[in-house]
Amino acid sequence: MRRLVPVSFDKVHIEDGFWGERLRINRENTLPIQYSRCKATGVIDAFRLEWKSGDAKTPHVYWDSDAAKWIEAASYSLATHPDARLQKKVNDLVDLIASAQQEDGYLNCYFTIVAPEKRWSNLRQEHELYCAGHLIEAAVAHYEATRSRTLLDVVCRYADYIDSVFGRRRGQQRGYPGHAEIELALVKLYRVTGRSNYLDLARYFIDERGRRPHYFDKEARQRGEAPAHNIGEVYDYYQAHLPVREQKTAEGHAVRVCYLYAGMADIAAETGDKELLAACRSVWNNIVKKRMYIHGGIGSNRFRERFTIDYDLPNEEAYAETCAAVGLVFFAHRMLQIEPDRRYSDVIERALYNGIISGASLDGKRFFYDNYLASFPGTHRFTGQRDPVRQNWFDTACCPPNFARLLASLGQYVYSQTADSVFVHLFVNGETGIWIGGRDVRLVQTTQYPWNGNVRIDVSPASPATFTVAVRIPGWCEDARVTVNGEAVATTSGLSRGYLKLRRRWKKGDRIQLRLYMPVERVESHPSVRHNCGRIALQRGPVVYCLEQKDNGKDLHDVLLPRQTKLAVQAGSASLLKGIPVIVGKAFRRSAGEWKEALYRTTRSGLRPCRIKAIPYFMWANRGEGEMLVWIREVDESVAPRRGNPRART
Amino acid sequence: MRRLVPVSFDKVHIEDGFWGERLRINRENTLPIQYSRCKATGVIDAFRLEWKSGDAKTPHVYWDSDAAKWIEAASYSLATHPDARLQKKVNDLVDLIASAQQEDGYLNCYFTIVAPEKRWSNLRQEHELYCAGHLIEAAVAHYEATRSRTLLDVVCRYADYIDSVFGRRRGQQRGYPGHAEIELALVKLYRVTGRSNYLDLARYFIDERGRRPHYFDKEARQRGEAPAHNIGEVYDYYQAHLPVREQKTAEGHAVRVCYLYAGMADIAAETGDKELLAACRSVWNNIVKKRMYIHGGIGSNRFRERFTIDYDLPNEEAYAETCAAVGLVFFAHRMLQIEPDRRYSDVIERALYNGIISGASLDGKRFFYDNYLASFPGTHRFTGQRDPVRQNWFDTACCPPNFARLLASLGQYVYSQTADSVFVHLFVNGETGIWIGGRDVRLVQTTQYPWNGNVRIDVSPASPATFTVAVRIPGWCEDARVTVNGEAVATTSGLSRGYLKLRRRWKKGDRIQLRLYMPVERVESHPSVRHNCGRIALQRGPVVYCLEQKDNGKDLHDVLLPRQTKLAVQAGSASLLKGIPVIVGKAFRRSAGEWKEALYRTTRSGLRPCRIKAIPYFMWANRGEGEMLVWIREVDESVAPRRGNPRART
Repeated sequence: MRRLVPVSFDKVHIEDGFWGERLRINRENTLPIQYSRCKATGVIDAFRLEWKSGDAKTPHVYWDSDAAKWIEAASYSLATHPDARLQKKVNDLVDLIASAQQEDGYLNCYFTIVAPEKRWSNLRQEHELYCAGHLIEAAVAHYEATRSRTLLDVVCRYADYIDSVFGRRRGQQRGYPGHAEIELALVKLYRVTGRSNYLDLARYFIDERGRRPHYFDKEARQRGEAPAHNIGEVYDYYQAHLPVREQKTAEGHAVRVCYLYAGMADIAAETGDKELLAACRSVWNNIVKKRMYIHGGIGSNRFRERFTIDYDLPNEEAYAETCAAVGLVFFAHRMLQIEPDRRYSDVIERALYNGIISGASLDGKRFFYDNYLASFPGTHRFTGQRDPVRQNWFDTACCPPNFARLLASLGQYVYSQTADSVFVHLFVNGETGIWIGGRDVRLVQTTQYPWNGNVRIDVSPASPATFTVAVRIPGWCEDARVTVNGEAVATTSGLSRGYLKLRRRWKKGDRIQLRLYMPVERVESHPSVRHNCGRIALQRGPVVYCLEQKDNGKDLHDVLLPRQTKLAVQAGSASLLKGIPVIVGKAFRRSAGEWKEALYRTTRSGLRPCRIKAIPYFMWANRGEGEMLVWIREVDESVAPRRGNPRART
Repeated sequence: MRRLVPVSFDKVHIEDGFWGERLRINRENTLPIQYSRCKATGVIDAFRLEWKSGDAKTPHVYWDSDAAKWIEAASYSLATHPDARLQKKVNDLVDLIASAQQEDGYLNCYFTIVAPEKRWSNLRQEHELYCAGHLIEAAVAHYEATRSRTLLDVVCRYADYIDSVFGRRRGQQRGYPGHAEIELALVKLYRVTGRSNYLDLARYFIDERGRRPHYFDKEARQRGEAPAHNIGEVYDYYQAHLPVREQKTAEGHAVRVCYLYAGMADIAAETGDKELLAACRSVWNNIVKKRMYIHGGIGSNRFRERFTIDYDLPNEEAYAETCAAVGLVFFAHRMLQIEPDRRYSDVIERALYNGIISGASLDGKRFFYDNYLASFPGTHRFTGQRDPVRQNWFDTACCPPNFARLLASLGQYVYSQTADSVFVHLFVNGETGIWIGGRDVRLVQTTQYPWNGNVRIDVSPASPATFTVAVRIPGWCEDARVTVNGEAVATTSGLSRGYLKLRRRWKKGDRIQLRLYMPVERVESHPSVRHNCGRIALQRGPVVYCLEQKDNGKDLHDVLLPRQTKLAVQAGSASLLKGIPVIVGKAFRRSAGEWKEALYRTTRSGLRPCRIKAIPYFMWANRGEGEMLVWIREVDESVAPRRGNPRART
């Protein structure tokens, strides 16, 4: 069912430009820091299985996944940027993990040394299969990067063992994980090994979910607990409220939703299961049409890291976990291969340039878990929200390595291909070599995207050949001009689901040029998003902007942007912003001075003109703590009644 | 230092009209219901001291205060509306409480039968002195209503015992309560008994607070606990971060702040302590100028029921506990007697008509703890906020009896007097008899306030006499016209701190008439209240209005009220609103229909005209669950740049 195949990230050389720089920082700063934090917290040494009751650094049920995600990220990095020291670190860790595998194939630090009696006793809560899934993903990445089978063999044995424990055969447990992850991992393992029992096991986990009587109740009773004692006393948190084929909306924990549906899309792709695909589409639509922040973040609820109800997208109270936006990219990417349509690639781009890269500081050393869309200093102490300052690490450290593995494998999101076509999803400076139409074709992108909309794509087949280059015209772009070798191509008539299909006989030296007109856009949100009524967000190209106190003073909520005000783009001048396009314009705000000591009054405030400067959202909180705001008040005088305005008389 | 003395509530007959009806419901519904809930939960029978470990209905540290507040409320009711059945219930409970007093004078169910070994071991957290304070207030009320000394004698013995335990003398504990209350209660006890040791003890508690080393640390160490384990690990929660004389802002738990500062104002009034008064003024100003909701609610933070930082007043996440607004009235009322100034009486009126009476349903049977200023159905499950539906009762049941005792003693807020003047603070239909200038003076107020601004005050001295009637001209009123016997009185020149002082030789049949012009006002809040930027609240007279979904459909946040739209007042027609003035007008909103399935877009939405109907805020949530909104979006075209507008060119 999969119509496209992604071009593997190791074939996509990302150089310089926006992503080249971010990937360099990921390699040079983020990966080493994450290893040292895993080392310092005990995550790595836990695999020595030397911990004893009473020792410090007690392994946690999540820990194996942190190490696994780091191996995965580091392996991706090794595949594109060989590095002997890093390779040794990775291999040593792989050997250590291999040494922790039990006789029967089982492999989990916590349940081996801390609570061996609890193995497989709490699938709902304890992340056992989740950790297994991450180990599998790490093993596949490590194998593909190094061709070493060490970890791959380990996880095959582990997966075989899991396959023996869970299923519908006599004597097996009819369980499934409370946190999806192993499903998509098993599909990867199937793809790399060709062994269909892994695909079958993934299908089993998917299809068992949400059946009644609930397995989570059964295992709770076996532990001697009341089934109702699960988080929030609800099944939807775990996407277990209904069999997955009957689910229509995105419910519960946002990361779980994305990992589950990514796995479902994988299985649909492999098996042609239309019912699964329909469920994926339905949940996808619910997310992107009703439950996604403008920065691509999802899971608005900070108390349960979860989806709530349609259009419930608070800004200052946002959660929008970095992992959830990463998960949304995983889900989108899989759907995109099944249904080449920019509604998926647009969301990938939205999340990448905004709610995902906001998850790390510009130096790649500190991390956000929550990606707020508004922030007010001094209030977090009282709300219990995490400080609006990126942190070194977290007790639950899922986000930083998720960020790192996404960036290290970013290349895979740029292109997909069929036998005789290549799809250009993202505009990323660099080059790739693809086998199309029986020839090696070299594609070179030259661009300063997202800072401007000019993209040059040089298409160089080894010898002339006919094939299609399908270029995404981004959904945000209302005026795209495309030329091939200088000749204009119609961009509206030729558009198929947002991709401009350029089919011709390509020869060396052919050049596609895109001019994506990139004005400052004012984005409005649906009238039911109560938090944003009367407000707009500034967006330029795929990049969402925000106001920071540093540039605009306090009381950002009071800034009022008339709709007719012209907004200009300037190159930033101060250090971090140097050369970055910032948006400037004239606005108004009330004078607090006029208010003296009143809190409420009926006399109207005068407005004073002010200038605003908006910076790319993902760059916020890199210059100290202060107010931040994405959704800015806007006034449109044309709607208000006045003399001579017919609306005034309605 | 107290310049005025309140006219006791039992001399103020409140009949018919707005408050007559609310007080009738308080007597007929609220008081009986609260007794039965105290009975059902075990609060009353706890005083039998028959509870044993393993029994159900374990007494809680708060429980004594629930019973005490009910006695206090019921006693006030008996004083104005004798009722033999109620009197018997009260007296029986008083006898029961008396029987629970220990040999040494101690009286507390929890620490007598549940945890006797913990007596006085955790003043910070365990509400022991707080409960004592409420028993004292109950005893004073019961004594004044019935002249029975039973409970008064009990609490005098208890207070004497407390006086022996706490203080600076050798062998005494240098403690003070984590939750103020006993301070103001001891002043009441001093006033009714004339025994100055009670006043001294109150002063001791006030002045000991916040000294270093912290008593709360000391007692924590004595319990074998780390001092840091207090709530939020901060002293400001308990107003113990500084000695009270050094406190300038309202910090910590809002009810605690109000009870403490009410007690401080009492002591300042009795002793002339200017430093205490200065602290009271400073904290008062901080509250009303920077930390109070428009409905008079305070303590915006729902996680700790506390004040946060200046201008931090979220609406949907508001706490604004009913008890805190009640406490603010206590504080204001005491300040008003020291400094007759409408800045105090205006706040009393604001809280009474809005954030306090919203605390009960119109039938007086169900209660709000949180008084939200915006509500959106379906989200509370995810935020952990209390449902936006009034409840029968609460585990911590402080609010309902606080509400009941305030209403039952409402009369005391209407008038104050000196030897030759009477102050009219509130406009309440009814009459009172006061001894002024050596004569009995009868004052009769006839009014439909707050539904209109006409107030007739008939002043009838037993024989002609010269004295002052000082009538409050409310701060909300910009056009007040006053006549005496039909002759106009200058209302601006004669105004002293918001009171119009009518000094003359009064004779029987004299009549003051007020016409308080009461248009619909649009109230703006300070530019730093980020939650309300671009929004206004509708207020008419002292009554704040709100939109409910029932009248206005969904998506209330999208309603846009042009500044120039005329708003009209109509008599409500449907059952609950029958005869109540509602505010109607034309507004605009976006058409969700236009949006189809988009969540974000740059194309601008058309607006469609709509009609709005606003109802008094305190009446919300009496007609089923739905959206509610106080702060409504407003647009003022005059500020937006347009052709010919010079602002456009700045």
